[in-house]
Amino acid sequence: MKEPIDFYFDFSSPYGYLASHKIEPLAAKYGRGVTWRAMLLGAAFKVSGAAPLPSVPLKGDYSKRDFLRSARFHDVPFRIPDQFPISTLHACRAFYASPKDKQIALAKGLFRAYFVDNVNLAEVDNVLRIAAAVGVKPDLNDQAVKDKTRAEVDAAVARGVFGSPYVIVDGEPFWGMDRFDQLERWLKAPF
Amino acid sequence: MKEPIDFYFDFSSPYGYLASHKIEPLAAKYGRGVTWRAMLLGAAFKVSGAAPLPSVPLKGDYSKRDFLRSARFHDVPFRIPDQFPISTLHACRAFYASPKDKQIALAKGLFRAYFVDNVNLAEVDNVLRIAAAVGVKPDLNDQAVKDKTRAEVDAAVARGVFGSPYVIVDGEPFWGMDRFDQLERWLKAPF
Repeated sequence: MKEPIDFYFDFSSPYGYLASHKIEPLAAKYGRGVTWRAMLLGAAFKVSGAAPLPSVPLKGDYSKRDFLRSARFHDVPFRIPDQFPISTLHACRAFYASPKDKQIALAKGLFRAYFVDNVNLAEVDNVLRIAAAVGVKPDLNDQAVKDKTRAEVDAAVARGVFGSPYVIVDGEPFWGMDRFDQLERWLKAPF
Repeated sequence: MKEPIDFYFDFSSPYGYLASHKIEPLAAKYGRGVTWRAMLLGAAFKVSGAAPLPSVPLKGDYSKRDFLRSARFHDVPFRIPDQFPISTLHACRAFYASPKDKQIALAKGLFRAYFVDNVNLAEVDNVLRIAAAVGVKPDLNDQAVKDKTRAEVDAAVARGVFGSPYVIVDGEPFWGMDRFDQLERWLKAPF
């Protein structure tokens, strides 16, 4: 059995959201599982010096257009949420507070709520309601959950994850939804 | 006759170089010409606050790997030059100092010299030698050439060009070699 693919994403990342629709079928096609790994872009940006796309002059305006066009291109339902970008700390903690067999359903529910239904994930009540809908009741004030979340995010940054989505397959890193073509060829055979 | 595509690039941009191999056949397939437009990323970075990729923590290491892998993926000969990145002011001036019917040959010659033959384009003698090889003898000290170059670069930034390659087709902008899939679909029909 081949090693599962590591799939890193931030819940406020439009490209991470788009990729969340594609990663499972792509991996399955090549006999791979996927380990979903929520992270916090803010932690990576502290190291890389990057800033959230919408706040970057020139790039910000382009990005909004590109989010919408990329969603149409990949045929994924999408809107730019009214509150964007946001802190996804609560969402990230809910992910790591949940049992492994519920994490993917929760991640999909959180992404859909934010990028389809315009639900603000920065509000803890919203995160808890979405968690409840997939049968999870995370304790977001539990220190162990906070520590686990921080450890996972730190480990991601230590591994070089600086963007979302970010996929690692057998040690080879792929940044961005727009590397899924290279990722697919790599899954066929490293080149 | 449809409007030509605007193709912006910086001579020190690996992705701009890769795109320079693809833009002409892609445009021709959809009955379009291409207007090649050299620019200086440094001027855009002053507005956007971005920095050259290799100098960015985390992203820099990834980028070098991605340059090489992307070149293999797109089947384009490529090496990371010993001097990288560099100022491409002389190269950009040589481009705008040349007659229009020589600009594309010069651009291809400059790109190939830098990314295949490891010739440092920051050195004016190298730029002049490559220009001579395509039958051009640009006067890089001519104030009119300096002014023209500056005006072209300023116009690019004013148009929102913040990266390389950057393509504009009928007002629709596409940033990056990795948007050529969307660019192609757009050329078929806007979506």
